[in-house]
Amino acid sequence: MDVFSGYMNKLIEELSALPGIGNKTAQRLAFHIMYMPKERAEGLAKSITDAREHVCYCAECCTLTDQELCPICANERRDHKTIMVVENSRDLAAYEKTGKYEGVYHVLHGAISPMLGIGPADIRLKELMKRLEGDVDEVIIATNSSLEGETTAMYISKLVKPTGIKVTRIASGVPVGGDLEYIDEITLLRALEGRTEL
Amino acid sequence: MDVFSGYMNKLIEELSALPGIGNKTAQRLAFHIMYMPKERAEGLAKSITDAREHVCYCAECCTLTDQELCPICANERRDHKTIMVVENSRDLAAYEKTGKYEGVYHVLHGAISPMLGIGPADIRLKELMKRLEGDVDEVIIATNSSLEGETTAMYISKLVKPTGIKVTRIASGVPVGGDLEYIDEITLLRALEGRTEL
Repeated sequence: MDVFSGYMNKLIEELSALPGIGNKTAQRLAFHIMYMPKERAEGLAKSITDAREHVCYCAECCTLTDQELCPICANERRDHKTIMVVENSRDLAAYEKTGKYEGVYHVLHGAISPMLGIGPADIRLKELMKRLEGDVDEVIIATNSSLEGETTAMYISKLVKPTGIKVTRIASGVPVGGDLEYIDEITLLRALEGRTEL
Repeated sequence: MDVFSGYMNKLIEELSALPGIGNKTAQRLAFHIMYMPKERAEGLAKSITDAREHVCYCAECCTLTDQELCPICANERRDHKTIMVVENSRDLAAYEKTGKYEGVYHVLHGAISPMLGIGPADIRLKELMKRLEGDVDEVIIATNSSLEGETTAMYISKLVKPTGIKVTRIASGVPVGGDLEYIDEITLLRALEGRTEL
């Protein structure tokens, strides 16, 4: 029995197609939207179409931006000879939040995953190799430390090494503030292997 | 430092204003929307404006609908002499899902809450009293069993009693399948008070 209006059902259906939003949450959100002032609801809808319309990939690092070059690539004070390779723009944002990294980025928009049928040609690797033809000192691989991230890191390092450019990988280990007893064995072993002298 | 495009930030901001959506979730949703096919993103935006534009209150029971009368009030086979009063359209949907209730509803769109400054005039009580001038046998109060829901139930019962119409309240007690040891004392006492002979 259809208790809501067709428009409500459509909205609930669209919302529940978003990741992490189940049917109950979609219902709650839909009702919240119905009780919003009309301009607010229209603002939300407009922000979706606007973002989808104006946002494109940075010509240099492939992150999502609304200009030809993203603010980081356009910044001359950044060290354009150091490129950190990340899986997506959220990872870029996470490193950017530290405020300490002065190089530029390269966003792959994915990671190699034979399980999901994602091969090297499906991520922005060609664009990375093209950038390495310029003047680059170091490629820092900051893909996730998941199976896919590690596979991608291995693949990139094999690709970059013949060019003579330095390739590094961010360290795996115990997170700061992490309690040893709650950390998985693989991380503990990584932390042991990667130990540094004091 | 602004790492995302202005349009992305706007979208993240709009999404994180929704209930239960924090900044991290809003970011994840925004990126998901960016990676969607363009028509899908536009469909989502359209469903929001459409719902907001076409959905209104049922002239009879005040639930959200896109017609003059909601499908339940328009249904002649429903028992229009029994009115179940609920706080919102989601509660109506919950009872409707049982498939056993044959009466109609009245949606208050809120509950009396002195703490939040919501008085009897702020919910759809006037509309309920107007309906009671017609041919009604019973008013079933199905507001939540929270402080606000109980206050509202008391208020409505006092209002309806002088009209001579039967007023009932849905039972409080142990939920079916509920394990006694995990149920709060107030519910346990309610269940005891409301015990029925076998």
